Amino acid sequence: MGSQQQHHDQFESQRDHHASEAGLVQGLRKDDLELEALDPKKKTKYEEEEEEEEEKENLGLEEEFSVERIFEKLTVPSWKEQLTVRAFFISFVLSVLFSVIVMKLNLTVGIIPSLNVSAGLLGFFFVRTWTKFLDRYGLLKQPFTRQENTVIQTCVVASSGIAFSGGFGSYLFGMSARIAQQSTDHSTSDIKDPGLLWFIGFLFVVSFLGLFSVVPIRKIMIIDFKLTYPSGTATAHLINSFHTPQGAKLAKKQVKELGKFFSFSFLWGFFQWFYTAGDDCGFVSFPTLGLKAYQNKFFFDFSATYVGVGMICPYIVNISVLLGGILSWGLMWPLIENRSGDWYSKELKPTSMNGLQGYKVFIAIAMILGDGLYNFLKVLSRTLIALQSQLRAKDVNNILPIEDQVSPAVTSALSYDDQRRTQLFLKDQIPAWFAVGGYVAIAAVSIATVPHIFPQLKWYYILVIYLFAPTLAFCNAYGCGLTDWSLASTYGKVAIFMIGAWAGSAHGGVLAGLAACGVMMNIVSTASDLTQDFKTGYLTLASPRSMFVSQVIGTAMGCVISPCVFWLFYKAFTDLGTPTSAYPAPFAVVYRNMAILGVEGFKSLPKHCLLLCAVFFGAAILINVIKDCIGKKRARFVPLPMAMAIPFYLGSYFAIDMCIGSLIVFLWERVNKAKADAFVPAVASGLICGDGIWTLPASILALAGVKPPICMRFLSRAENDRVTKLLTG
Amino acid sequence: MGSQQQHHDQFESQRDHHASEAGLVQGLRKDDLELEALDPKKKTKYEEEEEEEEEKENLGLEEEFSVERIFEKLTVPSWKEQLTVRAFFISFVLSVLFSVIVMKLNLTVGIIPSLNVSAGLLGFFFVRTWTKFLDRYGLLKQPFTRQENTVIQTCVVASSGIAFSGGFGSYLFGMSARIAQQSTDHSTSDIKDPGLLWFIGFLFVVSFLGLFSVVPIRKIMIIDFKLTYPSGTATAHLINSFHTPQGAKLAKKQVKELGKFFSFSFLWGFFQWFYTAGDDCGFVSFPTLGLKAYQNKFFFDFSATYVGVGMICPYIVNISVLLGGILSWGLMWPLIENRSGDWYSKELKPTSMNGLQGYKVFIAIAMILGDGLYNFLKVLSRTLIALQSQLRAKDVNNILPIEDQVSPAVTSALSYDDQRRTQLFLKDQIPAWFAVGGYVAIAAVSIATVPHIFPQLKWYYILVIYLFAPTLAFCNAYGCGLTDWSLASTYGKVAIFMIGAWAGSAHGGVLAGLAACGVMMNIVSTASDLTQDFKTGYLTLASPRSMFVSQVIGTAMGCVISPCVFWLFYKAFTDLGTPTSAYPAPFAVVYRNMAILGVEGFKSLPKHCLLLCAVFFGAAILINVIKDCIGKKRARFVPLPMAMAIPFYLGSYFAIDMCIGSLIVFLWERVNKAKADAFVPAVASGLICGDGIWTLPASILALAGVKPPICMRFLSRAENDRVTKLLTG
Repeated sequence: MGSQQQHHDQFESQRDHHASEAGLVQGLRKDDLELEALDPKKKTKYEEEEEEEEEKENLGLEEEFSVERIFEKLTVPSWKEQLTVRAFFISFVLSVLFSVIVMKLNLTVGIIPSLNVSAGLLGFFFVRTWTKFLDRYGLLKQPFTRQENTVIQTCVVASSGIAFSGGFGSYLFGMSARIAQQSTDHSTSDIKDPGLLWFIGFLFVVSFLGLFSVVPIRKIMIIDFKLTYPSGTATAHLINSFHTPQGAKLAKKQVKELGKFFSFSFLWGFFQWFYTAGDDCGFVSFPTLGLKAYQNKFFFDFSATYVGVGMICPYIVNISVLLGGILSWGLMWPLIENRSGDWYSKELKPTSMNGLQGYKVFIAIAMILGDGLYNFLKVLSRTLIALQSQLRAKDVNNILPIEDQVSPAVTSALSYDDQRRTQLFLKDQIPAWFAVGGYVAIAAVSIATVPHIFPQLKWYYILVIYLFAPTLAFCNAYGCGLTDWSLASTYGKVAIFMIGAWAGSAHGGVLAGLAACGVMMNIVSTASDLTQDFKTGYLTLASPRSMFVSQVIGTAMGCVISPCVFWLFYKAFTDLGTPTSAYPAPFAVVYRNMAILGVEGFKSLPKHCLLLCAVFFGAAILINVIKDCIGKKRARFVPLPMAMAIPFYLGSYFAIDMCIGSLIVFLWERVNKAKADAFVPAVASGLICGDGIWTLPASILALAGVKPPICMRFLSRAENDRVTKLLTG
Repeated sequence: MGSQQQHHDQFESQRDHHASEAGLVQGLRKDDLELEALDPKKKTKYEEEEEEEEEKENLGLEEEFSVERIFEKLTVPSWKEQLTVRAFFISFVLSVLFSVIVMKLNLTVGIIPSLNVSAGLLGFFFVRTWTKFLDRYGLLKQPFTRQENTVIQTCVVASSGIAFSGGFGSYLFGMSARIAQQSTDHSTSDIKDPGLLWFIGFLFVVSFLGLFSVVPIRKIMIIDFKLTYPSGTATAHLINSFHTPQGAKLAKKQVKELGKFFSFSFLWGFFQWFYTAGDDCGFVSFPTLGLKAYQNKFFFDFSATYVGVGMICPYIVNISVLLGGILSWGLMWPLIENRSGDWYSKELKPTSMNGLQGYKVFIAIAMILGDGLYNFLKVLSRTLIALQSQLRAKDVNNILPIEDQVSPAVTSALSYDDQRRTQLFLKDQIPAWFAVGGYVAIAAVSIATVPHIFPQLKWYYILVIYLFAPTLAFCNAYGCGLTDWSLASTYGKVAIFMIGAWAGSAHGGVLAGLAACGVMMNIVSTASDLTQDFKTGYLTLASPRSMFVSQVIGTAMGCVISPCVFWLFYKAFTDLGTPTSAYPAPFAVVYRNMAILGVEGFKSLPKHCLLLCAVFFGAAILINVIKDCIGKKRARFVPLPMAMAIPFYLGSYFAIDMCIGSLIVFLWERVNKAKADAFVPAVASGLICGDGIWTLPASILALAGVKPPICMRFLSRAENDRVTKLLTG
């Protein structure tokens, strides 16, 4: 699968609002991609090249510049040759790397940037190094091809995608007792604590269905409808460019830059570790803007990860997050806190959902839902309208998978590139009986086993989900191809409310809802993933069969790696999931509260909270309406409600990190635009990966009971006087 | 005076070991300059140019490349026109700037790097900006000439030179009760506490004598002997290059870079301030290498100043300092501490000179004296031998100041440059009667007034000093011209021992010795200063008269500015001069103990200390002998005893800062040699100046009673647990 595809479900989009959780960034990134058409400044060099290419394709200028003519003399390996052992070995290594990173992001603030560029770069780098090494000793049997590169990309993204869609930071962890204590119901019945084995089992029975559901429709999507799949296309062009001599040179430089910042970021994480002997210790508690601001969560916490994330995210995302932080922690929460004793009891613990915490969570949910609903309806209506017009334009027979017929809509101006790509795409078939058979078989297994894991999720709920799923998967794959936004987590939330309400609170509706969310999300997410990958494969001449196999293997890897990585975090950081922890897993409590909301209605909300929620729900929709009405040029300056909602619960420290990332990019672009464009993604990836990977040794140290020796503590002048007295006297 | 000249007395040299205090760096730098002839890597770009030029001069290739031909069409302003109001205004501003920086360095670790490049750059920048501004509005009456630039340079260096030679970090502050308490005698009699008025008065009566003493000999030094004065020559070439079009462009870029790092360093200092609410708070107490290392003063203290200093200093200086730190704080002090109770009483306060502190101070003194003595004898013998051969080579009449006779040694190959320079140098005369009359008059005033300030320093001591002083001043100016090392503070130390012993302990020998040191140092220091400046003036066609006037005005400024700056520090930081303070003024106690040693002999030393001192005294000489014997190529790798001695008393935290500076330069040179060469001095100056200038607002804040709000404190795990209990329970 095309790595950029990953954004859709793993990192989702803001339009469809599941972006709320982790997918936000990618979605927003895509949003920006659209805007980039208006603002040439925002394009990176290779994006420009890609877009130029795309434009040429669109304009029929392909004769003048043809990618495939460059590769003309290279024979395309057979699909089995594309699937090499080395590719899967490297995929495995990178999968672990990216799973750790995604998991860390899941469990800290829930914003996950696109790691595809680094996945692409690193995959290329590893295999290239390996093949060069073998080549030197005359041992190289098979050269490194772009098809193989696509296979790695696909496998890594499929695997690390599970780290997000597995719901370790959302629905799955939301079932635990630890999260239940922080939510509104405090029930002890609707609980299922984390377990390594049932995690793996659950993921295995639900993660493969999506793959089979889209296999029969791939030709319609890619060749007949000629859907764009911007991420998949971008990835394909990246890979293509790597394998031309000039591209390889730039890629090498980028990898070098990535490596430099990777090391820096890793060492910085290591250095910080020494000073975190206690709870309020270390750079993460640095009151950079003063103690008062720190108490309201305004500070720069020296996190290389979020500076990197900020560098990748469009400016408007970072500004929106900061704006949301100022609005909530700077304005609303202090005001609401003044009402304590009136709006809510003063005696409540600060973590109680009936107190200030409740306002934080539910207002955030309201804003996320408002934004999500608006974008869901918008994308869905666009999908349906486009689909309708496309169907009307051609004979219905044509869209059935009659394999070697080229549909009339595209025969007219078929370029050399298109001809060659279509030819190779149609060469390796995956029989329809295989796809249908696989779907039915896995569905049967799933229906039989999942109720054993979650007794609250009856077998007929799952059957209903699986009956509707192929349609939804098709919708999602189609919408994603059009708009680049996957609706996976929105479908997941729909499942929470539907199944939750169906089951009812008496029959464990909360747990049933959360489990149903997982089942639904995994199908629609992998469906759009694989379709995107088919597009990438189409553009790099990789066989659909190798794409399918690679995604199956990647998914299988992910089903084992992700739970293990989560388990490592869970065991190493024993306060994981509590609000004061370094790993608060903010969306776990959000998901659980959504489920409770679905089952019990609004009765659990604190005073005036429903009103405030309604206001913010409306505001989110209103902002979107304004954004769509004023034209794209001005829409750039309208903040994104989804992004604004994230700091409501968490505070704005990471917003400040991200804005610093933006600032760095801004200044760099001012100094040297070309260099910034070429290296910002590499530098950002380096920062994110280095810091992310440091969590691996950090959690191993924690498991081994090795504790940091020093506490860097920040005390007010008065406190310091008391401390000095204590330590000296 | 040539700004680089400043190193000699203000920043002195290691060869003659007064370098021990602040002059170290420049001396070492010069040492390195010599070595640079062997190691082309160490030359900066402009140094190379200069050296090329010098080589050409030496080889008689001047016909091919002549500096003065470039400036041929510009008329040289008269000496009165060279002395503009704007020049002195800017000199005043820069004098304050550099006095603050020098004072801060004096009072912290006593290592003062050459600030001449930044003085040159900033002087050029200010006047250039001002003249450009006036020019735009047609108000510019007089263009900015290199002669004017030389005048500024001279004035600033003369003025900020007083901040060092005034002895605020050494002999003058060594008289105070606060330092006496830390020294071996604890006497309450030999004490004179700081006072703003007597500081100014004392400096005024002793600082001008040196100027008059060298006026009659300037022609012998510059034209007859053709002495090199490497620093003065370098400064002159810097100024010359600024005033050619290409040079101005590079200078502008350098100023920009300087400005950038100045701002960074200033803001960094500002930021750090907020976290220093208490004694062990802030970045200066950051246990970067762990708590155990911190207790032994091994840590990186995030000081922009010392990173900058390290960038300017040659690698071997930084390595030597670090080596000294490891030897002392890493090895010797812990070993000696193990003997507490045996070698010295366990009950002593940690600051007692009879305990560990005594070992620290006296072993450092021994090493400094050993190194100093060796280099003093070496330079003196070289001076005498060279002088003798030069005198033998020419008619004795020729070296008398017969103004317009060109001595035979140089007539043979007199280039255009030399002709023009000689012509202008001899145009403006300073009558001999004026010089002699001035010297006698000031000496009389001085003999009459100084005993009123220090009753212990009898008038006949001063008379004796002033009788010998012109000879010593000549020696120092000559030696400096040959080797670029001023022996000023060595002559000062000789005065301490001589006058101290003569007065005897009963008659306040300690105070008399320290005061005599001041009288002596100021004469010989300004003498070599002015001669160096005459050389600079000779090379930039500035008149000897304007040089003299500029130095007189600069010295007068310094006599007021420096005491005021010291007073600011003294009032703002009330623990100034105590070992645990941020401003320990380490050499004050060293000087006082030297005076005590001179008066009382070795009886005050703790057990085995004399033996250890002898060992280190011998080792210092031995290292120098080895350095001189193994050839210059290998001598580069031999550490400098002087540099090694500094951390004995202070600890090696600043050594780590300086090594990081070295590391930056090293890496920068690896990445881009040309750029590093052009910008390292500018970046380093920016770092030093920015941090230095921050101390100005910092001390004003301290005076105003504004205290930093936060303490960044570093606690061990166990301490942190106690603190957490205190703050929460």
